[in-house]
Amino acid sequence: MRILVINGPNLNLLGVREPSMYGEANLDDICRKMEKIAREHGAEIEFFQSNHEGMVIDRIQQARGQVDVLILNPGGFTHTSVSIRDAALAVEIPLIEVHLSNIARREEFRKRSYFSDIAVGTISGFGEHSYYLALRAALEMKKE
Amino acid sequence: MRILVINGPNLNLLGVREPSMYGEANLDDICRKMEKIAREHGAEIEFFQSNHEGMVIDRIQQARGQVDVLILNPGGFTHTSVSIRDAALAVEIPLIEVHLSNIARREEFRKRSYFSDIAVGTISGFGEHSYYLALRAALEMKKE
Amino acid sequence: MRILVINGPNLNLLGVREPSMYGEANLDDICRKMEKIAREHGAEIEFFQSNHEGMVIDRIQQARGQVDVLILNPGGFTHTSVSIRDAALAVEIPLIEVHLSNIARREEFRKRSYFSDIAVGTISGFGEHSYYLALRAALEMKKE
Amino acid sequence: MRILVINGPNLNLLGVREPSMYGEANLDDICRKMEKIAREHGAEIEFFQSNHEGMVIDRIQQARGQVDVLILNPGGFTHTSVSIRDAALAVEIPLIEVHLSNIARREEFRKRSYFSDIAVGTISGFGEHSYYLALRAALEMKKE
Amino acid sequence: MRILVINGPNLNLLGVREPSMYGEANLDDICRKMEKIAREHGAEIEFFQSNHEGMVIDRIQQARGQVDVLILNPGGFTHTSVSIRDAALAVEIPLIEVHLSNIARREEFRKRSYFSDIAVGTISGFGEHSYYLALRAALEMKKE
Amino acid sequence: MRILVINGPNLNLLGVREPSMYGEANLDDICRKMEKIAREHGAEIEFFQSNHEGMVIDRIQQARGQVDVLILNPGGFTHTSVSIRDAALAVEIPLIEVHLSNIARREEFRKRSYFSDIAVGTISGFGEHSYYLALRAALEMKKE
Amino acid sequence: MRILVINGPNLNLLGVREPSMYGEANLDDICRKMEKIAREHGAEIEFFQSNHEGMVIDRIQQARGQVDVLILNPGGFTHTSVSIRDAALAVEIPLIEVHLSNIARREEFRKRSYFSDIAVGTISGFGEHSYYLALRAALEMKKE
Amino acid sequence: MRILVINGPNLNLLGVREPSMYGEANLDDICRKMEKIAREHGAEIEFFQSNHEGMVIDRIQQARGQVDVLILNPGGFTHTSVSIRDAALAVEIPLIEVHLSNIARREEFRKRSYFSDIAVGTISGFGEHSYYLALRAALEMKKE
Amino acid sequence: MRILVINGPNLNLLGVREPSMYGEANLDDICRKMEKIAREHGAEIEFFQSNHEGMVIDRIQQARGQVDVLILNPGGFTHTSVSIRDAALAVEIPLIEVHLSNIARREEFRKRSYFSDIAVGTISGFGEHSYYLALRAALEMKKE
Amino acid sequence: MRILVINGPNLNLLGVREPSMYGEANLDDICRKMEKIAREHGAEIEFFQSNHEGMVIDRIQQARGQVDVLILNPGGFTHTSVSIRDAALAVEIPLIEVHLSNIARREEFRKRSYFSDIAVGTISGFGEHSYYLALRAALEMKKE
Amino acid sequence: MRILVINGPNLNLLGVREPSMYGEANLDDICRKMEKIAREHGAEIEFFQSNHEGMVIDRIQQARGQVDVLILNPGGFTHTSVSIRDAALAVEIPLIEVHLSNIARREEFRKRSYFSDIAVGTISGFGEHSYYLALRAALEMKKE
Amino acid sequence: MRILVINGPNLNLLGVREPSMYGEANLDDICRKMEKIAREHGAEIEFFQSNHEGMVIDRIQQARGQVDVLILNPGGFTHTSVSIRDAALAVEIPLIEVHLSNIARREEFRKRSYFSDIAVGTISGFGEHSYYLALRAALEMKKE
Repeated sequence: MRILVINGPNLNLLGVREPSMYGEANLDDICRKMEKIAREHGAEIEFFQSNHEGMVIDRIQQARGQVDVLILNPGGFTHTSVSIRDAALAVEIPLIEVHLSNIARREEFRKRSYFSDIAVGTISGFGEHSYYLALRAALEMKKE
Repeated sequence: MRILVINGPNLNLLGVREPSMYGEANLDDICRKMEKIAREHGAEIEFFQSNHEGMVIDRIQQARGQVDVLILNPGGFTHTSVSIRDAALAVEIPLIEVHLSNIARREEFRKRSYFSDIAVGTISGFGEHSYYLALRAALEMKKE
Repeated sequence: MRILVINGPNLNLLGVREPSMYGEANLDDICRKMEKIAREHGAEIEFFQSNHEGMVIDRIQQARGQVDVLILNPGGFTHTSVSIRDAALAVEIPLIEVHLSNIARREEFRKRSYFSDIAVGTISGFGEHSYYLALRAALEMKKE
Repeated sequence: MRILVINGPNLNLLGVREPSMYGEANLDDICRKMEKIAREHGAEIEFFQSNHEGMVIDRIQQARGQVDVLILNPGGFTHTSVSIRDAALAVEIPLIEVHLSNIARREEFRKRSYFSDIAVGTISGFGEHSYYLALRAALEMKKE
Repeated sequence: MRILVINGPNLNLLGVREPSMYGEANLDDICRKMEKIAREHGAEIEFFQSNHEGMVIDRIQQARGQVDVLILNPGGFTHTSVSIRDAALAVEIPLIEVHLSNIARREEFRKRSYFSDIAVGTISGFGEHSYYLALRAALEMKKE
Repeated sequence: MRILVINGPNLNLLGVREPSMYGEANLDDICRKMEKIAREHGAEIEFFQSNHEGMVIDRIQQARGQVDVLILNPGGFTHTSVSIRDAALAVEIPLIEVHLSNIARREEFRKRSYFSDIAVGTISGFGEHSYYLALRAALEMKKE
Repeated sequence: MRILVINGPNLNLLGVREPSMYGEANLDDICRKMEKIAREHGAEIEFFQSNHEGMVIDRIQQARGQVDVLILNPGGFTHTSVSIRDAALAVEIPLIEVHLSNIARREEFRKRSYFSDIAVGTISGFGEHSYYLALRAALEMKKE
Repeated sequence: MRILVINGPNLNLLGVREPSMYGEANLDDICRKMEKIAREHGAEIEFFQSNHEGMVIDRIQQARGQVDVLILNPGGFTHTSVSIRDAALAVEIPLIEVHLSNIARREEFRKRSYFSDIAVGTISGFGEHSYYLALRAALEMKKE
Repeated sequence: MRILVINGPNLNLLGVREPSMYGEANLDDICRKMEKIAREHGAEIEFFQSNHEGMVIDRIQQARGQVDVLILNPGGFTHTSVSIRDAALAVEIPLIEVHLSNIARREEFRKRSYFSDIAVGTISGFGEHSYYLALRAALEMKKE
Repeated sequence: MRILVINGPNLNLLGVREPSMYGEANLDDICRKMEKIAREHGAEIEFFQSNHEGMVIDRIQQARGQVDVLILNPGGFTHTSVSIRDAALAVEIPLIEVHLSNIARREEFRKRSYFSDIAVGTISGFGEHSYYLALRAALEMKKE
Repeated sequence: MRILVINGPNLNLLGVREPSMYGEANLDDICRKMEKIAREHGAEIEFFQSNHEGMVIDRIQQARGQVDVLILNPGGFTHTSVSIRDAALAVEIPLIEVHLSNIARREEFRKRSYFSDIAVGTISGFGEHSYYLALRAALEMKKE
Repeated sequence: MRILVINGPNLNLLGVREPSMYGEANLDDICRKMEKIAREHGAEIEFFQSNHEGMVIDRIQQARGQVDVLILNPGGFTHTSVSIRDAALAVEIPLIEVHLSNIARREEFRKRSYFSDIAVGTISGFGEHSYYLALRAALEMKKE
């Protein structure tokens, strides 16, 4: 099983930016923990982060046929990027949407996600654990 | 750690009702699996299902001071019950919202949840695994 | 042919409540007339009324596999109960929605029905005759 | 008792157009069956169909004082014709609104009817039986 | 004069739940004070609380012809129960709507009340005093 | 000066239809009075009424270059006919919009007029006098 | 017959302000012409202009029982003053609403008038002639 | 305890204007009764009424530090005056909002109050008793 | 290949009406050019124009089974005619929607088309060339 | 260069009212500083503050032809006064809109300004400096 | 004549991505066919595709003064990019908007295009032919 | 004091693009003038422009801890970029939002800014002077 984890804009600041909202773990810590869990389950895992919408699209396109599950935290693009949505649909890879914070508690414009209705499922609000839960969900999907 | 799992209306039909949308496991199977996971982590777990809004409210009120985390799949009450929301707020127990299906893919009126903005987090779309992921999220919360 | 007629909240007051809007026949009179029509057509018919949403859900669930057509006047639940809607969908029994009064003439919030789009059809505005017409519609459905 | 049945645009195609949605009976068949029922109850019945809004208005105006009940399937005019609504109000003949298909299941713009709130009642979703039920409703109205 | 005071869901938690918003008096204290005031004015007073919408409806129906004024704090049902509204209309008892907190300061969905437009009047925001003011209003209504 | 007065659907029923709303004068009476006023001012005046949108369009098109002012009571077409609006724009004849009743007092859907923003001005609510005032407005326009 | 003409804010600038929209006649000219017409018909007429909402309200209140028709051009208050509306309702004097310009052609917020639905009728778009037409309408009302 | 009662536009007409909606007591009667109640409780009370928004603002500003509770019936300004709202906030005096009629039963535009969310509480619908109840609420506030 | 070109209301005025918006070619010129192109490709082509919605519906119904592609410029009916839409759906002929002007640049109400979502495709904004491009699109459809 | 600075309601309380939002400088201090800056640039400057909408309108009208730039902080009138907007348009003096606080951060109803779209520009959120920046902007406008 | 064809995100996947919606031709095939047509008409043509909004903006800016017509399929940017819209406006090159699929048939959020109202015209729904038709439209524009 | 000025897409075209709306100064001229003012006040200033959202985000992230005030003209990203908003929030640098043109006068979609509610303040409509005023505002902020 091959898993690709993509993080959108500003997630490179994890651990630095508003720790009270996003937690104190930085992105590297999280990736290492995910790698460990994946390895225990015999799965391959790759990571990608970018603040550039175009690079997220490019990376998703490259994943076509190379990846079994896509775990995506679109960051601010959640609410604005039809083009990443189109890319995710085009490559036909099952998608799990992840959010660190509980977006239902935040600004009104964060209520609309361009990804929820094309994802298998969504996990939000559990801080760094959102990623680990998403990974476990991905690993379960393989079994079925 | 004491965990209470509450299932709202029609979830007693799991495994019977629209299996293509809700999966083939019935509610008992799911509860037994959750029990097993909970036991492995030394946690107590209880289950409650009702088609009656009032009984769900009563049960939540009784949990006050008796329970550390509430895992709630409000079923159809997700979109209509201010009163269960009020009960959940009143007892001051951390809440995890769970949905079997991906509600973002369904009718327009399922877009509004009265629980997402008061929950710690939400997990939806992974069928029965939504429950197991929620349970794992609950167990993690204990550690912190 | 087995027909179940369910009446929602306040319909037990028929004949008493606002007779200028709802007519002077009480619910028993109507049931007896429906019974007579059903018997003439060799159909079995049962009646259920409750002011409790949960009991309406329970009753619908019990009808699974026992009933061929469900005639439902959801009363005030028409506009508020996603959970009864879910129950009606879950049991896979053809549904006929009935209203005594013409709900298009009343308060704005009565415009939205959670049942019309899952019903075979809707009959509203003919007072007690709405029920008899619905019964005839049910009996026709059998023939086909 | 004199009954006028008016069918709006495209209902002349009944039996031909999208039979899976509108059924296989054509308009003539339906009219003949209605005629038979009316005759059995000693009622006069007339039929009119037009694709022209103006002709529907003219026909309704002529019915003033000549007709006791108007059964109207406005077809596509349901959602667009204030002028037919005005005509129906002007002639002061009780109106029954009929639809073959369940319009609550269809496009968003079909949700608004210019006739429901001025009709005695509405029957929709029962295919050709919608007409026979409407006729029975009309015949009952006479008795009262 | 006979007065019935009905409290909706979660009001049994008064004094326990979010005291900063709802005050420290519990429901029993409030009832006893109301009883005292009523007695001073020679009025009979009864109290009812339930978390079940159906039981609130049943209780209101029983009040038909037995009660002169209904003081109602619908709690969370304020914003969701068309059926209690219908019951209150059906029994034709003058209604006073009461809220402990100022609902205009709270969540957007609390702006809509199904009771304000059918009540004689509304009193909100004065904590437990909302009840005593409502009782005084009821007693004045008797005089007129 | 040549003036064309066009009346839309159901205005042929004036004096008959809902006299409490539309007055007791019939359309002929009104036309004769308008004719008299026009003659006194040395203006030519013509009248046209139709229940058919297409015929109103045809008539407006024929007026191109033949008429100096168009007085239009679009009746029910006020709220629905983009095509008559387009015709009125195409012929480049100054337009005065007239309504017998005060449409601001009526159904919500009567609030939108497709003619007000392309008219010189609008006169509504004065019963038959709306026409005479419109005619005087037209005669004034000539002077300038 | 006694007629009161009230002009709201900025109408004292008539003839000066945006003559292309409001015409070149100033308010005095218009008043003098109205006086002449009124005198010819044996009617008394008074004029009042103010930029102060409160003074318009005061003036309307004083008119109670002293005036038969109120001709009101509320200017900018058209879209904002519930209080002038309330005053006009309270004094129970028939109201004619007048606008110089065609407000249907202007900013979106000018679409809502707090006066149209309580006026006998509305005249807008004819420049200074709007006033003379309103006066004629008022004089006609007397006859009836 | 010092209490200031401010009445907005048209409330000087109380007893005269639409008595079926606003009752037959005039403003003076009401003030005198309030004075009596206040005196019994050892509280000072002052009254102010104006049809001028600016004068209401001036009066509220003068109350800064001079008054313990402000009882405000903003009349038509309820729905339109951000500036009175701002004044009430600026002087930091607890505010009680009062309405004679039940505004939830009236025009749609009366649903929005600029005062409810900054008031301690709101009392509406009890006619002149709304004032006495507000006064009692104010007197209670002192005790706490 | 048989092609039918239908033009809705006011398109008979092409070349005359607002040439700056609709171009200087008249409808005959355009038809002749389309005929020439069709002939070069061995296709039959017919033309129909009407200001009457009913006649457009009639013409579309007659095309059933006689025509391979329908090129439709619905004119003002674009935004108002559910009935022509229904006719176009009923005859099951592929539809190409054409507009001379760019409707996205015009009034708000022109944004909604009842035809775009049932058409194969839409071409708008190229003046008379919109027709020729539509014809070429139709001819291509044949090849496939 | 002549500059007029107008401050709307409650701005006379500056320095007193909610200093955390509006700063500690009072209006006199600010005026004196503006005077100093203006004098340094050889410009005349005048100040006007009122809580009365009518007096603001009067003052703006008097400025016609007397003033080169109008600096306006409309206070609460920002969101409610079409009439001041009309006055500002009528006198044809370039307008600079100023706000002390950042209105984008406040209540929803403060989002709409009746002045932004008729102003040269808007400056908001810099406390008392908003005025000095506006003055500098005005002085620059002179040079060009 | 110099033509620039710009394709937005995910259009590099043409022929691969959802062929049932977007057709089987890949972008290279389409470009070669367009090149052939352009050459036949003596026009120069260039192509650009990018998944990066910024690169599309850069490319449009470079086209300033170098290109006579811009054919743009903005892909997912159609619904989200104000900045590409601004670029297209800034360079003052006539724009033709192209879509392969009929966007009126798809998700609600695809209804809003930031390009339609600044384009000369729009062509959508004809698969690869949309491009050829757009090219023909561009070539016609040259002649005029 | 260190100031960073970031300009979003298409602002590199200043002086070239629509000079009537954006003025004739180009971006370099403006930067040089800002530099001069900054130097006079002993402040450091840096400039950055990009058409790429990702690069704007990267640049803002690098400014963390290096910059005291951020002056941002987000260009078209004003209305679309949640991600730049998130970046600006994450780096915790005070933000001043600047616009050359008065965005309140332009398209409806330009009314929503993702930056105004997180900025200290906003300056719009003064052409190049908007930048100089923003700089002065920044320099003032230092003093406090």
